[in-house]
Amino acid sequence: MRPSRRAPDELRPVSLERGVSRHAEGSCLVKFGDTHVLVTASVDEKVPPWLRGGGKGWVTAEYGMLPRATGERMKREAAAGKQSGRTQEIQRLIGRSLRAVVDLIALGERQIVIDCDVIQADGGTRTASITGAYVALYDAIEWMRRRNLVPANAKVLRDHVAAISCGISDGVPVLDLDYIEDSSAETDANFVITGSGGLVEIQGTAEGAPFSEAELQQLLGLAKGGIAKLVELQKAAIAS
Amino acid sequence: MRPSRRAPDELRPVSLERGVSRHAEGSCLVKFGDTHVLVTASVDEKVPPWLRGGGKGWVTAEYGMLPRATGERMKREAAAGKQSGRTQEIQRLIGRSLRAVVDLIALGERQIVIDCDVIQADGGTRTASITGAYVALYDAIEWMRRRNLVPANAKVLRDHVAAISCGISDGVPVLDLDYIEDSSAETDANFVITGSGGLVEIQGTAEGAPFSEAELQQLLGLAKGGIAKLVELQKAAIAS
Amino acid sequence: MRPSRRAPDELRPVSLERGVSRHAEGSCLVKFGDTHVLVTASVDEKVPPWLRGGGKGWVTAEYGMLPRATGERMKREAAAGKQSGRTQEIQRLIGRSLRAVVDLIALGERQIVIDCDVIQADGGTRTASITGAYVALYDAIEWMRRRNLVPANAKVLRDHVAAISCGISDGVPVLDLDYIEDSSAETDANFVITGSGGLVEIQGTAEGAPFSEAELQQLLGLAKGGIAKLVELQKAAIAS
Amino acid sequence: MRPSRRAPDELRPVSLERGVSRHAEGSCLVKFGDTHVLVTASVDEKVPPWLRGGGKGWVTAEYGMLPRATGERMKREAAAGKQSGRTQEIQRLIGRSLRAVVDLIALGERQIVIDCDVIQADGGTRTASITGAYVALYDAIEWMRRRNLVPANAKVLRDHVAAISCGISDGVPVLDLDYIEDSSAETDANFVITGSGGLVEIQGTAEGAPFSEAELQQLLGLAKGGIAKLVELQKAAIAS
Amino acid sequence: MRPSRRAPDELRPVSLERGVSRHAEGSCLVKFGDTHVLVTASVDEKVPPWLRGGGKGWVTAEYGMLPRATGERMKREAAAGKQSGRTQEIQRLIGRSLRAVVDLIALGERQIVIDCDVIQADGGTRTASITGAYVALYDAIEWMRRRNLVPANAKVLRDHVAAISCGISDGVPVLDLDYIEDSSAETDANFVITGSGGLVEIQGTAEGAPFSEAELQQLLGLAKGGIAKLVELQKAAIAS
Amino acid sequence: MRPSRRAPDELRPVSLERGVSRHAEGSCLVKFGDTHVLVTASVDEKVPPWLRGGGKGWVTAEYGMLPRATGERMKREAAAGKQSGRTQEIQRLIGRSLRAVVDLIALGERQIVIDCDVIQADGGTRTASITGAYVALYDAIEWMRRRNLVPANAKVLRDHVAAISCGISDGVPVLDLDYIEDSSAETDANFVITGSGGLVEIQGTAEGAPFSEAELQQLLGLAKGGIAKLVELQKAAIAS
Repeated sequence: MRPSRRAPDELRPVSLERGVSRHAEGSCLVKFGDTHVLVTASVDEKVPPWLRGGGKGWVTAEYGMLPRATGERMKREAAAGKQSGRTQEIQRLIGRSLRAVVDLIALGERQIVIDCDVIQADGGTRTASITGAYVALYDAIEWMRRRNLVPANAKVLRDHVAAISCGISDGVPVLDLDYIEDSSAETDANFVITGSGGLVEIQGTAEGAPFSEAELQQLLGLAKGGIAKLVELQKAAIAS
Repeated sequence: MRPSRRAPDELRPVSLERGVSRHAEGSCLVKFGDTHVLVTASVDEKVPPWLRGGGKGWVTAEYGMLPRATGERMKREAAAGKQSGRTQEIQRLIGRSLRAVVDLIALGERQIVIDCDVIQADGGTRTASITGAYVALYDAIEWMRRRNLVPANAKVLRDHVAAISCGISDGVPVLDLDYIEDSSAETDANFVITGSGGLVEIQGTAEGAPFSEAELQQLLGLAKGGIAKLVELQKAAIAS
Repeated sequence: MRPSRRAPDELRPVSLERGVSRHAEGSCLVKFGDTHVLVTASVDEKVPPWLRGGGKGWVTAEYGMLPRATGERMKREAAAGKQSGRTQEIQRLIGRSLRAVVDLIALGERQIVIDCDVIQADGGTRTASITGAYVALYDAIEWMRRRNLVPANAKVLRDHVAAISCGISDGVPVLDLDYIEDSSAETDANFVITGSGGLVEIQGTAEGAPFSEAELQQLLGLAKGGIAKLVELQKAAIAS
Repeated sequence: MRPSRRAPDELRPVSLERGVSRHAEGSCLVKFGDTHVLVTASVDEKVPPWLRGGGKGWVTAEYGMLPRATGERMKREAAAGKQSGRTQEIQRLIGRSLRAVVDLIALGERQIVIDCDVIQADGGTRTASITGAYVALYDAIEWMRRRNLVPANAKVLRDHVAAISCGISDGVPVLDLDYIEDSSAETDANFVITGSGGLVEIQGTAEGAPFSEAELQQLLGLAKGGIAKLVELQKAAIAS
Repeated sequence: MRPSRRAPDELRPVSLERGVSRHAEGSCLVKFGDTHVLVTASVDEKVPPWLRGGGKGWVTAEYGMLPRATGERMKREAAAGKQSGRTQEIQRLIGRSLRAVVDLIALGERQIVIDCDVIQADGGTRTASITGAYVALYDAIEWMRRRNLVPANAKVLRDHVAAISCGISDGVPVLDLDYIEDSSAETDANFVITGSGGLVEIQGTAEGAPFSEAELQQLLGLAKGGIAKLVELQKAAIAS
Repeated sequence: MRPSRRAPDELRPVSLERGVSRHAEGSCLVKFGDTHVLVTASVDEKVPPWLRGGGKGWVTAEYGMLPRATGERMKREAAAGKQSGRTQEIQRLIGRSLRAVVDLIALGERQIVIDCDVIQADGGTRTASITGAYVALYDAIEWMRRRNLVPANAKVLRDHVAAISCGISDGVPVLDLDYIEDSSAETDANFVITGSGGLVEIQGTAEGAPFSEAELQQLLGLAKGGIAKLVELQKAAIAS
C-alpha cells in the first residue's frame, strides 16, 4: 500500500488552472496533489544574442522554490547569491522539454520565458512544472496569434508535452511519487513524453541498487499511462 | 476621480487568508486589490550569531517578487546573483516593523523568519506584506504556544501592526495607492502603525516637488483611518 | 543633559570645506562633529541606459565607509564582495534627495555621480553626506557652467537641500544625534528639507516603543530649525 | 558511414592510464579518442557537514574543462565567477554514478573527491570522466587499504561502473558519439551501467523529433555492448 | 627636466601625520606630494584560522581607492562586487612588507589589520601606503604596550621599513615618480627597504624595452637614498 | 647539498613539447622537473574594448591550477566563485612578460589569449608558464602567418623571453627552486629575461631576513645563466 493509498498506476489529483496571472501572456497554476507550481509564460521580443538575426525564436525556462515551499525552510537563492545545481538542472530540463514541441521558426524571432515557481512542494515539482508550462505556453502563443504576431494558421505548438515521475518503491513500480515515496524510492525516473507518445526525455537514476531493463520497461509503461491522462487534462484546461 | 474610482480615503478590497501553506508554522495570503503576497512564518530554533546565548529571540524578514509579478517581466534575483537595493530596503523595513510589536524576550532564544513573496504586484507590496505578516506571525506564535515553546500566558505579540501607503495624486491626498497612482503621485508615503495608533515607521518621499507639513498631516490622517480598518481585518482573520 | 552637553536643539559643530579634491569637478569635506565625510561630485557625459536619447540628465550617489571609520573595524565591502542593505539604502536616499532640487532637463543628458565616503563616523553619516553633497554638486554645476556645458543663466539647482537627524533620547526630543545618542534613542528620524522649507524625505523609526503624532511634530520642529542653520552654512561655504 | 568510419557499435580507441599524478591518491588519464580527461581521486578525512558523526563516508565529484579544450576557446569558469549549469549537472552525475558502486559505510567517515578535468574535448567528456574515475577511485581505495584506513578485506567497491553515450545519427543508432556526431544527432543518450549490467543512470534526450521505445531499446543494447568493453579495459588497467 | 621640476634624486614633499583617526589604535595620513593615503592599524584579538593556537600573531593589509581619487572616476570595487587584481596585488605587497620587520611571536596571538585607503592619487600609492603604514603600525604596537598586551621591553618592530618607486623616464633614472612620469616611464620599479638598508622587496618591470643590469643598479642606488630620507621622516613623526 | 642533489646553478630537467593540443593555434606542455604546465595560445579576432579601432593587438594570459596539482587538494577556483589574489598576480605577470617581446602593431588588431594550466606543481609554476608560453605564442603567430593574417616578413616576436626563479636556501644562492626549497628559502626571486639578456621583470622577496645588494647580484647572475639555457631549449623546440 502506498503512503497516499493510491494504486501503483494512480496519479495524484491533478488540476491545471489557467489565467491566474493578471500580467503574464500565459499562466497556469498546476497542482499535482500538494505540489503547487505557478507557471507564467512571458513573451519577449528579444532573443538571446546567439540567435539574433536568424529569424528563429527560443523558449527558455527559469525555476525557483519559495523558501518555505518545503517542510524545512530552505535558504532563498536570491539571498545566497546563486542558483543551486539542482535548480539549474531543472530549469534546463523544462526548457528542453518545451522546445521539443515548439516550431521555433513559426514562433518568429522572439523568446518565450517560462517561470516555474514552486509555491508548495511535495515531490514531482519538475514534472508538474513541465505539465503546467505547456498550458501557459499554449496561452502565450494564442495571445500572440490574436495580435497577429504569429500567422493565424501557423502550428507553433506541434504536439502536447507532459511529464511524470515513476519509481520503484518497496520493490513496486509506482507512478507520480510524492515526497515520502521519493525519499525512499530505490529508483527514480522522470519521463517527458509528447501527446502522440514520443519520448522527449528520460532520466532514470538508481538511488540504491542498480535497476534492470525489465524495471525500466515497467516504469516506462506506467509513465505512458500517466502522460495520457495528463494530456487529457491539458486538453480539457485549454478547451475550457 | 481616482483611476480605480475609489474615494480618496478608500482602501482597495483587502483579504487575509490564513493557513495557506501546508508546511509553514504560520502563513497568510494577503491581497490588497490586485497585489497578492504570500507570507510564511518559519520558526527556527537558531538565532543569528550576535544573539547567541543571550536568551533573546529575533524576527527577520525576506522579500521577493516572482519575475512576472509585474507588467514587464523582471530579472529573477536568484539568477542575477544578488538582491536589489529595493528588495533589501523592503525586507529590512518588514523586519523592523514586526519587531516593534514583538516581545523578543518572551519569544525565547529562537528566530522567526518571515518570507514575503509577491505573487502579483499592483502597488503597495511592502504595506500588504507587513499587514499579512502580522497574521502569519500570530499563527506561528500560537503554533509555538501549543507546543509549550512559549509560556501559555506570555504576551509575545504586544500589539497589532499594519501598514498602508498614502500619496498626493493630482493634488489630492489619497489612501492605498495602486500601481497607476503610485507611478504618477507627487508624494508617496508609507506608514506602519500599531493597533493602538502608535507610529512605528514613517517614510515619506517627494517624487516631484517637496511636500508641506500640512500635506504630511493629511497623509497621516488618511493612514490612521486605513490602518484602523486593516487592524479590524486582522482581528477578523485571526478570530475565524 | 545630552552626552555631548549640547542643548536639545543644538547642532554639533558643522563645517563644509570645499575644493578638497584635486581631481573631482566638485568636492566637500563635511564634518558634523566627529562624523567626517568626503564628498566628490563627478561629471559623466554618459547617462544610464534607460535615459539615453531623452535629453534628460541624472544624479546618482554611492556611499561607503572606510573599514575603520567606526569604533570596531568593519569588513571592507569590496572584500566582502557586496554592499550591505544599509549601504544601498543610504545611497538611494542621497540620490533621491539631491534629484529633488535638480532640474534634470537643464542639466542636459549627462550624469553627476556623488561619492560619499565616510572617513570617520560618529552618527549621522547619511545626513552629513546629503548636506555636504549639495556643496559638491553646486561646484560641479558651476564647473560645467564655466565650460558652457549648461547655459549661463540656467537654474539647474532649484533650491538648497540639507538633512538632519532627530530623535527621542531619554524621553527628550533632540537634534543631530551622535553615535551614543543614536544607539540608545527610542525614536530616530531623518529629515531632508529644502532651503525654502519643503519636505523632501522623512524617515522616522521607532527603535523601542512606537512614537506619537505629537512627538513626530516635535521632531519635525527641531529638524526645521537645524536645516535652516545648515542651509546658512551651505550658503556661507559657497560664497567663500 | 560515420564521420570517424567506425561501425555503429564501435567505440573510439579507449585508453586508461593509471598513476599519472604524483600527488593524488588515485589518478587516471582517460582517452576516448580525442577526448582526454585527467581524473584524480583525493582522500579527505573530513566529510560534508550533514554526514558528520554518522560513521558513513561520501564520494563527490567536480568537473571542469580547460578553456581551450574545445575548438572555440570558452570563458574560464574561475574568471567568470561561477560554474555553468552544464558543469554542475555533469559533476552531480559523476558523483551519483560512483556512489552507486561504493559501500559508503565500509569507506568509513571520510570523503573521496574526484576531480575530472577535460584536457581536450571531442564529445563524451562525461562518459569518459565516469569511466576513468572508476580507476582513480579504485586506486585511492587501495591506497587507503595499504594504510589500514579501510579493513583489508572490506569490499568498498561493490562493482565496476562505466558510462557511454549512444545516439541516433542520420537515422542510425550509434555508439560513443564524437563531437561531430553529437552536434547533429537526433537523439542523444548517456548510460551509466555497472560491471554486472545493472542500470545506474539513463539520460536520453530528443534533440529534434521525439524518439520511440524501440529506439530507446536499440540504444540501450548498444550501450550494454560498449560498457562491457569498457569494463574489460578497466580490469586490464587495474591488473597492470 | 622632470614635469615636477624635481632633481632626479628628489622626493616629492612627504608628510606623515599621526593620530588622524579617533577610533583606530594607530593611524597615519601619509602624503607623497598629491598622493594622499589614510592608513589605520586595527588590533584584532583573533588571528586567521591557520594560525590559531600557535601563539604567533599576524599582520595583514587591505587597500582601496576612493572612486574619485583619480583623474577619471573609477568604478567602486564594493559596487563592482570584487577587488581588482591590482588591488589584491598591492595589499599582498603591503602585508608582506610589514611582516618583514615584525616579530610575530613577540606580537602574540593577535592580528593587526592595516587599511590603506587612497584619498587622492598621483602615482606611488603603494609606496606611500607602506611608508605610512609603518607609522600606524608603530602606534598600534605602542597602544598595545600601554595596555600590557605586549611586554614592556619586547622589540615587536625589529626595524623601520619604507618604500619608494624609481623609474627610467626619458632615459634618465629618477626617484619617486608621480602619475605623469609613471605613465610614460620606460621602466618602473618599487623598492621596499628596511631602516638598516636590507632589501625586503624589489619589483622591477620593463614597460617598453627591457632594462639592463646597470640601470637596475642605478635605480637601486636612487631608492636607497630615498628610503634613507623616508626613514628619517618616520623617525621624526614618531618622535613628535 | 640541495634536496634534489642538483648543483646550485643547475636547472631541473626541462622539456618543451609543442603541438599538444588538437584545437589551439599554439600549444606547449612545459615541464620543469615535476612541475608540468599545459599552455595554449588562442587567436581571437576581437581585442579588449579599450583597444578597439586602434589597429593594435594585445596578448593576455590566464592561469589556473588543477585542484590536485598540489600535495594537498586545493579548492577549485571555479567552485569558490573567484580567482585568488595569487592567481591574478601570476596571470598579470605572464601577460606583461609576453607583451614585452611582442610588436603589438605588427600583430594587428587581434588578441592572443594564453592559458597556462598547471597539471602538476612542484614549485616554479609561473616561470615554467612564461617559458612555455613563448613557444605556444610562437606557434600561434606562425599559424597566423600561414594564413596571411600577419605579413610574411613581419617580426611580430622581437625576441625570446623566459623566466626562472632563484633563491637563497640555507644561505646558498640556488637556481630553479622546487617546492621543498621554495618553502624554506630565505629569499625568493623571479626573473623574466629576454633572449638578448634584457631584464623584463624582477620580483625579489625576503621571506625571512632582508637580503643584501650582493645577494641580489648573485641571484641575478644565476638567473642569467639559467635563462640562457632555457632560451636554447626554446630554440631547439621551435626548430624541431
